[in-house]
This record gives sequence, structure tokens and C-alpha cells, in this order.
Amino acid sequence: MSPSSTHSAHLPIPDTQSERDERHLAIQRVGVRRVKFPLLVQTERGVQPSVGEWTLDVALPAEQKGTHMSRFVAWLEEGAEQALDAATLRSRHLAMLEKLHASDGVTEVAFTLFERKRAPVSGIESRLDLQARWVVETRGGQTTVWQEVAVPVKSLCPCSKEISDYGAHNQRSIVTVRVEWLADKPLPFSAQMRFAEDSASSEIWPLLKRADEKWVTERAYENPKFVEDLVRDVALRLNADERVGRYHVDVENFESIHSHSAYAVIERN
Amino acid sequence: MSPSSTHSAHLPIPDTQSERDERHLAIQRVGVRRVKFPLLVQTERGVQPSVGEWTLDVALPAEQKGTHMSRFVAWLEEGAEQALDAATLRSRHLAMLEKLHASDGVTEVAFTLFERKRAPVSGIESRLDLQARWVVETRGGQTTVWQEVAVPVKSLCPCSKEISDYGAHNQRSIVTVRVEWLADKPLPFSAQMRFAEDSASSEIWPLLKRADEKWVTERAYENPKFVEDLVRDVALRLNADERVGRYHVDVENFESIHSHSAYAVIERN
Amino acid sequence: MSPSSTHSAHLPIPDTQSERDERHLAIQRVGVRRVKFPLLVQTERGVQPSVGEWTLDVALPAEQKGTHMSRFVAWLEEGAEQALDAATLRSRHLAMLEKLHASDGVTEVAFTLFERKRAPVSGIESRLDLQARWVVETRGGQTTVWQEVAVPVKSLCPCSKEISDYGAHNQRSIVTVRVEWLADKPLPFSAQMRFAEDSASSEIWPLLKRADEKWVTERAYENPKFVEDLVRDVALRLNADERVGRYHVDVENFESIHSHSAYAVIERN
Amino acid sequence: MSPSSTHSAHLPIPDTQSERDERHLAIQRVGVRRVKFPLLVQTERGVQPSVGEWTLDVALPAEQKGTHMSRFVAWLEEGAEQALDAATLRSRHLAMLEKLHASDGVTEVAFTLFERKRAPVSGIESRLDLQARWVVETRGGQTTVWQEVAVPVKSLCPCSKEISDYGAHNQRSIVTVRVEWLADKPLPFSAQMRFAEDSASSEIWPLLKRADEKWVTERAYENPKFVEDLVRDVALRLNADERVGRYHVDVENFESIHSHSAYAVIERN
Repeated sequence: MSPSSTHSAHLPIPDTQSERDERHLAIQRVGVRRVKFPLLVQTERGVQPSVGEWTLDVALPAEQKGTHMSRFVAWLEEGAEQALDAATLRSRHLAMLEKLHASDGVTEVAFTLFERKRAPVSGIESRLDLQARWVVETRGGQTTVWQEVAVPVKSLCPCSKEISDYGAHNQRSIVTVRVEWLADKPLPFSAQMRFAEDSASSEIWPLLKRADEKWVTERAYENPKFVEDLVRDVALRLNADERVGRYHVDVENFESIHSHSAYAVIERN
Repeated sequence: MSPSSTHSAHLPIPDTQSERDERHLAIQRVGVRRVKFPLLVQTERGVQPSVGEWTLDVALPAEQKGTHMSRFVAWLEEGAEQALDAATLRSRHLAMLEKLHASDGVTEVAFTLFERKRAPVSGIESRLDLQARWVVETRGGQTTVWQEVAVPVKSLCPCSKEISDYGAHNQRSIVTVRVEWLADKPLPFSAQMRFAEDSASSEIWPLLKRADEKWVTERAYENPKFVEDLVRDVALRLNADERVGRYHVDVENFESIHSHSAYAVIERN
Repeated sequence: MSPSSTHSAHLPIPDTQSERDERHLAIQRVGVRRVKFPLLVQTERGVQPSVGEWTLDVALPAEQKGTHMSRFVAWLEEGAEQALDAATLRSRHLAMLEKLHASDGVTEVAFTLFERKRAPVSGIESRLDLQARWVVETRGGQTTVWQEVAVPVKSLCPCSKEISDYGAHNQRSIVTVRVEWLADKPLPFSAQMRFAEDSASSEIWPLLKRADEKWVTERAYENPKFVEDLVRDVALRLNADERVGRYHVDVENFESIHSHSAYAVIERN
Repeated sequence: MSPSSTHSAHLPIPDTQSERDERHLAIQRVGVRRVKFPLLVQTERGVQPSVGEWTLDVALPAEQKGTHMSRFVAWLEEGAEQALDAATLRSRHLAMLEKLHASDGVTEVAFTLFERKRAPVSGIESRLDLQARWVVETRGGQTTVWQEVAVPVKSLCPCSKEISDYGAHNQRSIVTVRVEWLADKPLPFSAQMRFAEDSASSEIWPLLKRADEKWVTERAYENPKFVEDLVRDVALRLNADERVGRYHVDVENFESIHSHSAYAVIERN
């Protein structure tokens, strides 16, 4: 542990990290990384349990020798029973800064989220896995919350369709949509994923009957998109939504005709 | 989807994968991989939610053209509400084979599990994350169940201690203990992890106060282990436990004096 | 280092790992893992430099306390200038066992290999990256050499093509072909990759002009393959080649209509 | 390919991506990712071959429909024989922008580099593997070059040493030092890694004799460092070196008493 923590001043053990530091160098970020901890996600349809991977840090002033690493984990344990959405995580983050006696810092958690979807023709239901993330950061008195979701979709190449007598190459794409969360206009993950799905050649499902597979195939063929089209269409939809302020969109096509990816990024600051 | 599934014979859509195959080649394993799905783990202390990553396959006879891929996912959806231990997963696996009209096949799920532990001196509680896995396999009428848990521990080098005037290099190690699950003598994960923890230079905790850190440091120094010692000590403990039949133990030391790992394996067949 | 090595008996430093072990447990594998070291690959067209990731281990008899870990790295350094093919690696592996005074053990190295290819219409040349691997193992006096190559290709779904009015979903697939290397009938990587490429809906290239892209798109559409078809067609080709003895083929389709993979395995023992 | 490229206007194939785009949205980054290609690294001691993983992109103006993806790969092929250092990569990057008719863009390559080191007592030589990276970026007429190297070292906890009667926990750490490359004061990788090694509790080697192992063990014990100390000591050294302008230092300790990491970041802008 580097350096360790205690709340008790009575232990006859030296508290090395509370000493003054003479190097006069502030540290922008110090904390813990790759911490796995159970997570309860509060969605608009109820609580969904998951496994969180946490990154937690604070800024350390130049004169302070070290932070209290164990308090980060203690903070996680204290909140173990609380279901989190962006708003409650923001509050918890501020409590973390207080616990660490820090003015600036970051609370980040990455997790798998499942969204129930009905197949387009058969209506059969299945759960699509999404990689989600919250990042809460306080710097200079300002606290921002980012909410991210990586959505698997299908993209079909317009050029390939145009030049070929039949068929068109297509592939899985991952559309990662990160938006600044606004307290008065919160955006649920289920809405955030739609920006990606509505912009793709076709959205996808874990469970499809043959009639659904026909639908997805034809839908994608009717709706070809370059990686540039896909990222722009997501951006257009985000621009038109008043719940969205700053954002960052990354589209990656795992090209089926190459062994590398094509990708594109648009961000609004 | 390759090939797709339907339960309805009434859809006017050709069922390509039900045709006969003329290549006369059996396929040992065909199915789905990297499927994420919510998981409920039944432990001896209650139900613990997690996220499972599933691998599901069946053997395909030489004359059969394809399997019904979508049935694997349908099978997952059917069992979504059921908490699993090794026994119930075994039953579910047999139901999967039936659903796929297969005699042989594999059900595998990897997940993160948390075990509550009390720090050695302060008694403060925290949750250690473990990577767990079940593999159920049916071949030739025999069904075996393997239960695996990867346990992070601390190892301290005896050579370094012996030759140095002070100190000894030590590092994080991962001890992966895979045992054959025996229906009449089931081994809980909490017991299985102890084989690794009891054999290490010291077990570890996510949350330690300074008095605990002193304990762990000194405990490891008093208890040096080569990677060979660690793997043998786990094997000795497994050999002495009547709940354990076949096993496979892998110890990996993320050496602090090198950029590579040392490792050792003992298995009993 | 666990345990450390020396060739000098004159150092006044105890040699902890040379002591006898009283636990009476043989260790099947003990060695080093995740060792990165420069690699020179001898191909039929010349020497290709790469970066190897090595796994090296030996079996340790019950009465021996430990192996000499540093000798594995010393063995790598000794061979740094030698270009390797399967035959020379086999010799080097036997030298490693001798250096470690071991009868049994494994030498494994994974690396990226590039094969130059000409695009199908324009003829423009580019280098396809392949993940390759050699595994040399000695057990009970028998030494076997496995040569593996993972080849990215394109697969197109026959069901999707059949049921859809236009288009068909397709995706990148990875075909991993592992064959037992036979000293008298050596198989170059460039031939080994062809088993995968010839069996796919289409092979792929890093660099394609539009006329090439049209070719690949149409070729795949004319040549649909389930994951079952692909693995069987590779197996048929392997069965018909006298240079191939035992083999293991794994095909994984990164499905463009799902967020998971379909896969299939055929092996001949 | 999305969208495809051609230099020839004579092909009777439509050039979809050259059309005008009506969405009026500029794209900050569009290109290719995860491209593997052979790399020749020009070091001060000669040319070292490696395998590069490339990320290449350009900015796309609002009115332009798409970029020419295949030109990125063609650019790689054109430079295949040229050994690169930061200066030549910068020139190559500018040629890439020209080839893509782009004003802004990024050239990034990650690779494994080996540095020969002599063990501290025995003097025996071995090659330490480092993860290196160059990032060249042009925005608004300004081109910056960043050179990064991730160095494995050993850290030993001062708190653990102070509070324990004997021993101290220690572990592998990765110190990632990214500096802005200055054309008139170039910093070789071999010098850049020393900032990390000189600041650690001890540097490490792949190959150590027992006398070396004793040296490393004792050196680390005499030289305990919190993650905060390590990051500050690297920053102090960088501050004192006139070849260094802006920098970013990340230290991660793979804690041996926890299953998570401690980390710290200092950057100078």
C-alpha cells in the first residue's frame, strides 16, 4: 500500500505519508486503478447489478507527501449497497473528495450493461451487452460528469454496394457515444444507445429468428454507411437533442475485407 | 447468424442449415463464443450477481450440415432468472444438449466473484475479486464439471531473502486452482480459494490498515516461497482433501525483479 | 528470481534452489512466461525479423527443489543471432532441455508474421499480418513440433443470402490452423495460410483498389460459407495434403449481426 | 473499405467517397486503426527491427464526403524500407498529410523496443523489453511529436519498511514517460528510459546472477519509494534536463499486497 491509511492516531505505527514533501511538485492524479467491485446500476427500469472496474484519484498539493490510498477502497465499501446513476455517482464522488481532503479528483467506473431488445419481426426478446462508463471529474471547483456507452452495430459499405454487381461487404462496428451529463436533462443509457443504433446500417440483436435475419440483412443493404457517414449521423442526432451538451463520438468498423479497422471521431466541446 | 434457427416450420423461409452435408466430416465443437449475459451465482452465503462470459458448443455429426446457433442464446435467456452453482449448471448443460439435439458439448462461463475477507489485525472487511470459471463437458456419455478460481496472493523469494543482508523481493502472484467438481462432495469457491491463500507467502486484502500492512509484510518475510514451493504446497493441500479428485494448479509470479513471469503447473489426472 | 541461477561455484552465496525437496511431488511445468525477445524467422523467402513472446518450461522431478530460471533467459540470449524455422527451433529446444538438465519441457513462441500478397485485380502488393506460433514439446522421449498460424479472412452467411431479397451479412473471421510439423515434409507458413484463405468466402488484403474491392465483394457473395462449412473445407484440404499429420483448426466468425462470435473446431489426432 | 481509394480516374467504377457531403459536419479524425506493419527503428546504436501497430488519421472538412482509406496503407508500404526515428517519422507524417490532401492529422505507432543492459555485479548482458510509442500530430499548422516509453522497474513501499520489523512489500511498476520531442535537442530512448530507472527503488534486468539479485534486493530496500515519490522523482529529473519540454509521467505499481494498482500522474504543459 502506498501509502497506507488509518483513522486512528492511537496506533503506535509511524504515519509516513503524512509528512511534508520538500520536492515542491504537485501531483495531478494519484489513486488506485483496476479495482474491481460489485456495482448496482440504477436504470429507469430498475436496478441492474454488474461488476465495476474503478479508477479513483485525487490531486495532491506540492507540500503533501502522499494520499491515503486505503480510503479509496473504504469509500467503495461504504457505498456498496447504493444503486448508482449519474446523479448519485456525482454526489458520491464529492464525498470521496471530502474523505480524501482533496479539492480535485476523478471517479471513473467501467461496466457491462444489458439492454433488452425485441427482434424486428419475430418480436423475440434478448439482452444486448453494452460497455458503459461514467467519469466524474472535479477541477478548479467545477465538476463534470461524462456518460459513455459503446454500442455494437452493423455497417455496410456504400462503395462496395455501388461498384459490385451483387452483395456488399459489411461488418460489426462499435459506436462509442460519450456525452456530458446534464443534471436537469438526464439522458438514460437506453436513449443514449439509440443515437448509435438509429445511425447504423442496421442495429443488431443477440437473438434472431430467420425472418429477423432477413430483415437485418436487407435493412443494412438498403442503408449503406461509410464510417464517415455513421459518425456524422450520430453527431447530427446528438446536435438535435437538447439533453446533449458536449460529446465525443468514436466509430470503429472492424473491416471484413481487411485485418485492420477504419474509424472516425467527432467531438463537440 | 451461421446458421440461423427457428422453431416454426411455418415460416416460408428456407432452412439452409438443416440440409445434409456431403463432406463426411464430424465437427468436434461448434457454437458461440464471447457471449456476455447476466449471471446469478449461488454461493453458500446467498446469491451473488455477476456478468458471465459464455462459450457454448456441441459436437456435430458428419452428416449434419449445421447447428442451430440461435438456440444457444435462447437457452441463456430461458435460464436468466436461475441462480447457478456447479450442480444446477450441470443440469442446465444437459438441457442445452437436448435443446440442440446433441450428444456431446461444452458449457463454459467465466465471471468475477467477490469474497468478503477480514483484515488480519484490524478486522476491517473488504471484498477480494476472484476470476472464476465453470466448464461442463459431455463426451461419450460422460459429463464432467470443472470449477476454477484464480486467486491473487503474495509470494516472497527465498533465495533473495537468503542471500541479501536485508529485504527480499516479493510480488503479486495469481494461483489458478481448477478442480473436478464431485456431486457428492461439492467444494464451495470460498474453500477452493483457501488452498491458494494458505499456501502463499501471504494472502492479500483490498483494504488494509497500517497494522494489517505490517502483518502482511512480516508474514510474507517469515514465509518465503519459490514458485515451485507454492505450486507444491497447493498440490499437497489438494491431495489431502477428500472433496478433490482431479485438479490442475497454475501459479504465476509477476516477478518484481524482471519484466516477465515465473510459473509452475501441477496437475493430477 | 525464483530461484536464481549461477554457473560459478565460487560465489559465497547460498544456492537455495539446489537443495532436495521433501514433498515428493513432481512438477509438470516450471519456467518463464511472457518473455519478450527479438526473433528472426527463417522463411523460404529470407529472414524476417519480429518480436517473440516466449513461454519456456521444464518438468521437475519430485526430489528436486527448483529449476534454474535464469538459464531460460541465458538460452534466449545465446540464440539471439540465429534465424529460426521449425527445424532449428526443435534443435534449440533440445539444447534448452540439456542446459536445464531436464528430460521433458516446452518451448513456445508467438509472433507476428507478414506475408506479401498481390491484390486480385490491380496486382498491387501489400503485407498481411498473421499471428504465428511454434510449440515444441518433449515428453517421455518424444518431441513434437506444432506450427500455428491465425489467418484473417472473410465469411459470408449462406442462410442470410438465401432468405434475403438482396445482400447477405458477412464479417471478418479468424482461421487458426495448427499442424504437426513433420521433419521430412516441412510446411512453410505461406502454404499453411492458404488452407485458410482457399476455404474462406474470400481471402482479404490490407490494400485494395476499387476494382479489387469489387472482386472481393462479389467473390464472397458467390461463395457463402457457414462457420461449419469453413472449418470442414479447411479440414478437407488438410486431409488431402501429405505434408500434414495431426492438426487442429479453429474458425471464429466475428458476426456482424450479433455482438458475439460463432466458432467451430475440427482436430485430427 | 470505407471509402476506397484510387489514383486512376480511368477506372469505370464510381468514386462514391469523392462526392460532396451535405451534413455540414467536419470530422476531427478519420482513418485506420490496429494496422500491423514491420517497423525499422533507428536508434543511436543502429537499426532495430520491430513490429509496429499504427493508428493513422486526418481531419476531414465539412463539405468532403470521405477520405481515401487505402492511401494510409499505401503510405505505409512506400516507407517500408526506411528506418525511423522521431525526426524522420515527422517528415513521413507530413508526407502522409500531403498524400491525403489533409491539413490536420495524426500518425501514431506503438512497438516493442529492446535495450541491452549489463547486470549490476556480474556484468552479464541481457535485453530489457520496453513498450515505446511515437505520436505525431498536426493541428492548425502546428506539428508536435511525442515520444513515449514504458519502463518496468521495481518499487518498494516506505511505509511497509518503516512499520515492519523486517522486510517490506515491493512489486513491479511500469513508469510511462512521454516527452515532447524537440528537433534541436533530440532525446534517445536509451536516455529517456533512464529517467524512470534512476528514480525507481531499483531498476530491473531480464537476466541476473545471484550476486546481482542480492544487489537489486538490497538496493530496493535501501531506496523505498511511494508511487508519489517515484512520479515526483521522475518529474524532477525531467525538469532538470534541457532536452525536455512538455511531458507526461504515469507510474503504476502492481501492488503485491492488493489485487489492484496504485498510480500517479504528473504532467507539464
